[in-house]
Amino acid sequence: MLSSQLLDAILAEVRPLIGQGKVADYIPALAQVPANRLGMAVCTVQGEVFTAGDADEPFSIQSISKALSLTLALTLYREEEIWARVGKEPSGQPFNSLVQLEFEQGIPRNPFINAGALVVSDLLETRLTAPRQRTLELARRLSGNSAVIADSVVARSEYQHSARNAAIAYLMKSYGNFHNEVDKVLQSYFNACAIRMSCVDLARAFVYLANRGTPLDGAPLLDTRTTKQVNALLATCGLYDEAGDFAYRVGMPGKSGVGGGIIAVIPGELSVCVWSPELNKAGNSLAGTAALERFAERLGRSIF
Amino acid sequence: MLSSQLLDAILAEVRPLIGQGKVADYIPALAQVPANRLGMAVCTVQGEVFTAGDADEPFSIQSISKALSLTLALTLYREEEIWARVGKEPSGQPFNSLVQLEFEQGIPRNPFINAGALVVSDLLETRLTAPRQRTLELARRLSGNSAVIADSVVARSEYQHSARNAAIAYLMKSYGNFHNEVDKVLQSYFNACAIRMSCVDLARAFVYLANRGTPLDGAPLLDTRTTKQVNALLATCGLYDEAGDFAYRVGMPGKSGVGGGIIAVIPGELSVCVWSPELNKAGNSLAGTAALERFAERLGRSIF
Amino acid sequence: MLSSQLLDAILAEVRPLIGQGKVADYIPALAQVPANRLGMAVCTVQGEVFTAGDADEPFSIQSISKALSLTLALTLYREEEIWARVGKEPSGQPFNSLVQLEFEQGIPRNPFINAGALVVSDLLETRLTAPRQRTLELARRLSGNSAVIADSVVARSEYQHSARNAAIAYLMKSYGNFHNEVDKVLQSYFNACAIRMSCVDLARAFVYLANRGTPLDGAPLLDTRTTKQVNALLATCGLYDEAGDFAYRVGMPGKSGVGGGIIAVIPGELSVCVWSPELNKAGNSLAGTAALERFAERLGRSIF
Amino acid sequence: MLSSQLLDAILAEVRPLIGQGKVADYIPALAQVPANRLGMAVCTVQGEVFTAGDADEPFSIQSISKALSLTLALTLYREEEIWARVGKEPSGQPFNSLVQLEFEQGIPRNPFINAGALVVSDLLETRLTAPRQRTLELARRLSGNSAVIADSVVARSEYQHSARNAAIAYLMKSYGNFHNEVDKVLQSYFNACAIRMSCVDLARAFVYLANRGTPLDGAPLLDTRTTKQVNALLATCGLYDEAGDFAYRVGMPGKSGVGGGIIAVIPGELSVCVWSPELNKAGNSLAGTAALERFAERLGRSIF
Repeated sequence: MLSSQLLDAILAEVRPLIGQGKVADYIPALAQVPANRLGMAVCTVQGEVFTAGDADEPFSIQSISKALSLTLALTLYREEEIWARVGKEPSGQPFNSLVQLEFEQGIPRNPFINAGALVVSDLLETRLTAPRQRTLELARRLSGNSAVIADSVVARSEYQHSARNAAIAYLMKSYGNFHNEVDKVLQSYFNACAIRMSCVDLARAFVYLANRGTPLDGAPLLDTRTTKQVNALLATCGLYDEAGDFAYRVGMPGKSGVGGGIIAVIPGELSVCVWSPELNKAGNSLAGTAALERFAERLGRSIF
Repeated sequence: MLSSQLLDAILAEVRPLIGQGKVADYIPALAQVPANRLGMAVCTVQGEVFTAGDADEPFSIQSISKALSLTLALTLYREEEIWARVGKEPSGQPFNSLVQLEFEQGIPRNPFINAGALVVSDLLETRLTAPRQRTLELARRLSGNSAVIADSVVARSEYQHSARNAAIAYLMKSYGNFHNEVDKVLQSYFNACAIRMSCVDLARAFVYLANRGTPLDGAPLLDTRTTKQVNALLATCGLYDEAGDFAYRVGMPGKSGVGGGIIAVIPGELSVCVWSPELNKAGNSLAGTAALERFAERLGRSIF
Repeated sequence: MLSSQLLDAILAEVRPLIGQGKVADYIPALAQVPANRLGMAVCTVQGEVFTAGDADEPFSIQSISKALSLTLALTLYREEEIWARVGKEPSGQPFNSLVQLEFEQGIPRNPFINAGALVVSDLLETRLTAPRQRTLELARRLSGNSAVIADSVVARSEYQHSARNAAIAYLMKSYGNFHNEVDKVLQSYFNACAIRMSCVDLARAFVYLANRGTPLDGAPLLDTRTTKQVNALLATCGLYDEAGDFAYRVGMPGKSGVGGGIIAVIPGELSVCVWSPELNKAGNSLAGTAALERFAERLGRSIF
Repeated sequence: MLSSQLLDAILAEVRPLIGQGKVADYIPALAQVPANRLGMAVCTVQGEVFTAGDADEPFSIQSISKALSLTLALTLYREEEIWARVGKEPSGQPFNSLVQLEFEQGIPRNPFINAGALVVSDLLETRLTAPRQRTLELARRLSGNSAVIADSVVARSEYQHSARNAAIAYLMKSYGNFHNEVDKVLQSYFNACAIRMSCVDLARAFVYLANRGTPLDGAPLLDTRTTKQVNALLATCGLYDEAGDFAYRVGMPGKSGVGGGIIAVIPGELSVCVWSPELNKAGNSLAGTAALERFAERLGRSIF
């Protein structure tokens, strides 16, 4: 039943939504992405890949990198060292809010809002000599694509518009929950956001979440229990302040980025990635979410 | 592998946790429940039931009734009529907070925090002539136990301590999102909370969520799609401000009550109910959560 | 220098502002007040009265009654009994917000926001057998006008739109800071708001605040120290979330109402009342504030 | 009636309070100040000075500098240029909170909370080539004491603990309300806070606020209207989240600092400065506030 034809049909159905969303424009480099791009790729736990549309065109993965960074941190730290510094609960707030962070004294709600991802980046900075390179290497290894790169123009541009994230980092520092130099960590953080990958790259890269922690190269990355936990976090916190709606409509753990990409997984079966640059009000790909909703319906599959 | 022995073993493991939590004491009737009660029951989609400990002793289901009320509302209204008045997102706030409700102009975040459940009760009040009786009948039908009753002492006691819920209802009324008499709806709401059921009753009652909407009596209650949606809401919003942690540790859609009960489901397989009256700080059964965590581990089963 | 001509000149200057504000319309009875009314009255501590415009036309005093009610409470309770239940600080929030009230566990910031005035009404209800009548009598005594009445149509209309205030009262009740029946207190509260007085009535009534606590009838109402304290509270909290701007522009302790009236005092010298029904965004009379600003400038007098 | 004997008597009365507060200890340099210091100085508009206790011992003026900086800004900018970037209302929040700043999109409530003072420093940075030197010169000129210096150890120490203020500045930058380099402005800001002055210096320095804007040297600094406006802001916003209580108890416009100093004025008459390093919970000098309260009572003078 799973086939490239199915994906083609789904993309055809959601293509009319293009024009109803808004391409992220807070940095020029992102605003220039053509709004009409639309791609989708599925990778099964057996390694079979199905594609449709612009599935091979690389785009800025943005916050999807937060799932990569957390995974990298989970390979470097004991679980409890991480959860002492960042929570596991949905925030119920915009992704870049400082309000809750102040009420909860510098402990971010979860690793997928900006504050939490900055703590994870701070953890990587402490433990790694070259965190940027290591994150990029992980993206290459998991996707099996050694040509994956980070877009330095995007990274620099993000850095030039980084006041909000700097505010978040300094607020956490004032509570003792940020240990490295803010500037240095921000640069690593933006570099990870600026990684460019295609739907195919991302579907391949995240299949370990559907495969008990083992990527396509067969070398275990996370253990089964930890993998389930990452999926649980993605399901409750992976789509900004729209996690509930995504669970309701799509029913898969997932992570979105303002570049218009969304990855999602059906544990035990497959990973899927869609890309359409126009975002809805919550900052998630409008046509992308619709495509995943149809995908779940057509396959009759979700985690629920 | 699923057996009463397994459940016995799990309860033996978590029993030492008794003494570390706190029985709900905001109303006298709840405070009197013996802290050492511990029960567990599983009901498979085939209707097989496994039990352990005090699985047959009825207790106050409290907020577990919120899942019943939503289900009842979903049989009476079109989906969009409900979601126009209550959201589908985790709140990131205590269950009885008015802060977010004011910021979001009277639209509660989800149907499982108090504000949302009050809107659902208001919906039932509008459409039903005897909402209390109908909710009770649903509990009886689903559990197959016609002896299920609502404890009028508990209901009255809740009503006498209802200032906070009255404040929530009036705040929604001020935004036009509450249509019936506050007093009347509060009485129906507390009556549903005061329903007494045992672990066996509850495991049997909620197996429809694992069985595409069809309860043990075979007469479809919700369709497949709606059932998945309810599970999605339970997974992201069912455990107060601890939904993320519950997903992380247990990995099942679930709903807890301050009476110390928790129900959870593995779609396609089973429903499970635990009961232990002592609560953790988030208001969820302490030993109950631990029992479900072990249950998921032992079976090697979760939705993730 | 103080003369009716001065007041006439001031009103002529601010009259062009009529049309730029908005008459309160949350209840029909207030919405019907002609927008073009404009009056002003000054009463010196010697009892001399100067008037201009519609200074003799009664209007709904609304929140100006909060200053009367606090004064009445100060004659019935020891100071510390009152300040144990309501604070003395500006709120920095809209007058009818519940957010701060929840964060600060049911203790309102000050007696001039709705929550605080409801606590004061609750205090009056506890100590007086006929609080409504007593408040009205105080208004009559202080103004020397026995024809002062409360508008029962307005009171009833407010009561029918009282959901927000009921929410506030119940929230305080849930924290143990509201002792009487919500309904009963709301009725007294709205009755005080519905009192109708003219600029002349109000200027005469509030001259005790400029006269060390002694009204025109010569019988001391508050002692000097308490009077200064009431003035201090009016200066920091008397104009909703615009107290700072009012102090900056006008420089007198004052209290406004959504009926479009504002009273203010220069301690040791005089009280003044303006009336113009159109409000600015903060809920204070637009032309009224401008008139007081000019009045302070022309006289070269303020507390600063 | 005003005499050094009066001040001595007041200090004797409040000295027993020493031991009930807490010296600021967020930076080591402040924590070392002896807790038993107690001084008071009054300067009349005629230039007469009365002193008591440690009135000649310099201390860290800390946030009292915010009044100096605002005054300096008022000499450099048109009024409306300042109030476009910072409000005039009490905050109802702790002095270093970011919550309100986010809700109000980067516009601080008033110039006396940290966020507002940072905006004022940013304004000075834009207009002056050597803002630090100019602020210091103003302090010297107004006090008539050319030996006034900024304590570089304190300034450096503050800078090393500046994460919270950096967070505030970056948050404002993200809303476009901060124009210069954060680091540079923070250094100027901390330098102003680190100025050391005695009670005598401060009483002399701030007498212009009691004297229609004219300091002791006779050269007008602010005009009468602007001076009244500064006093109005001090009265509503000058004592952190305790402005209402200070108005209630003391009844004078004032400004406090965590170094334990408080300056206050009676317009047309005098300025007064007290110093006692131990602070109450709101961060204001405990014995200092009590001394001012007694001072107002004994003189029978306040603005109310």
